[in-house]
Amino acid sequence: MTETPTAPDPLADPDFRQAVADLLGVLAYGELTAFHRLADDARLAPTITDKAALAAMAVAEFGHFERLNARLLELGADPEEAMRPFVAALDGFHDKTAPADWFESLVKAYVGDGIASDFYRAMADYVDVDTRRLVVEVLADTGHAGFAVDRVRAAIAADAKLGGRLALWGRRLLGEALAQAQRVAAERDTLTPLFTGGPDRPGADLVELARIFNQLTEAHTRRMASLGLSA
Amino acid sequence: MTETPTAPDPLADPDFRQAVADLLGVLAYGELTAFHRLADDARLAPTITDKAALAAMAVAEFGHFERLNARLLELGADPEEAMRPFVAALDGFHDKTAPADWFESLVKAYVGDGIASDFYRAMADYVDVDTRRLVVEVLADTGHAGFAVDRVRAAIAADAKLGGRLALWGRRLLGEALAQAQRVAAERDTLTPLFTGGPDRPGADLVELARIFNQLTEAHTRRMASLGLSA
Repeated sequence: MTETPTAPDPLADPDFRQAVADLLGVLAYGELTAFHRLADDARLAPTITDKAALAAMAVAEFGHFERLNARLLELGADPEEAMRPFVAALDGFHDKTAPADWFESLVKAYVGDGIASDFYRAMADYVDVDTRRLVVEVLADTGHAGFAVDRVRAAIAADAKLGGRLALWGRRLLGEALAQAQRVAAERDTLTPLFTGGPDRPGADLVELARIFNQLTEAHTRRMASLGLSA
Repeated sequence: MTETPTAPDPLADPDFRQAVADLLGVLAYGELTAFHRLADDARLAPTITDKAALAAMAVAEFGHFERLNARLLELGADPEEAMRPFVAALDGFHDKTAPADWFESLVKAYVGDGIASDFYRAMADYVDVDTRRLVVEVLADTGHAGFAVDRVRAAIAADAKLGGRLALWGRRLLGEALAQAQRVAAERDTLTPLFTGGPDRPGADLVELARIFNQLTEAHTRRMASLGLSA
């Protein structure tokens, strides 16, 4: 057997392929769940216009879901099977972080989505180019940021106690997100190749992983600050 | 003042304009509510694929909402104001008809939407051409029909008792829909010009209205039959 100087297609390796399907699966179910939760949380909106704005964000998430679903089919994966292993963890996260009011739902849409996006984007560094491009595109902000920041800042300027309550809420969201991410990582060792890599493709090691978690926490702190909340 | 032989623009009449804004308002809030209810009912879906199919229908309804909203702005109306008078009636309908399981949600998506569409389409006969065209377009089937019919027929073929329960459910949906429609008609006398008309534009009279209600009930019976249910 001769070694060719060109990089081999990482998707030719069934383990790597499975890891990519896992990443797309967790992301796809995450987007579908985000769709449902945003649509559901919209009932807390104070005006029909706010309700429609949250619905528009939900619709954008569904568009992402459709693209991830299409990529899974392209790779010959069964989307239902690819998503199933992550249903319990993602539903668990949402069940434990059901917003009690409109402002909690805004903070969750912004901060919760931010944590998830940072994490998936970091993982995307280790997949094939086409998948990476798609992941980065679907994780682009769908308008949550400006909408949530404006409304939350205005509300806490008028009510300092609300700021204290939402700061606690943000900490809880981060804690639950990291707990569920660890649960997924522990249960799905098929994702391991993305972190350990191999001789002919990059992969994160444990030092790298610690760096990613540090960055997640730093980015979370910045997002909380932009809402006017202490992290 | 001279009478011109060309038809006057009905939208020049403020009463007629208000009636059109009302029709667009009830329809827009109806679509926004349909979006939220379909998204919410999707949690009853037995598989992720079914969940995604219901989400896709919800997204189509939101697209309709956006077009109706745009038409309201075009007519110089405030969408929030145009929708507000119908919030109680439409939320009331949905609160009273929350599906208990997946099959009730499918029958509601198909039968409930069908009744509403028939009613709005009948009213659209009395508005200006551009508004009518938009109303007919947004009321086109978004895929509810085939999806619901296939699944419900298969389920009742396997379980006769389910057919009896869903037949009752369909009757309740029709009853609640007509009750809420009467409530809206009674409270919003601004809609009256659409039914009574005027010297220079068509309008439905009471005989016509009775005919519309008859047609609604007949169409409902046909839809129930296509589900394999007695009306």
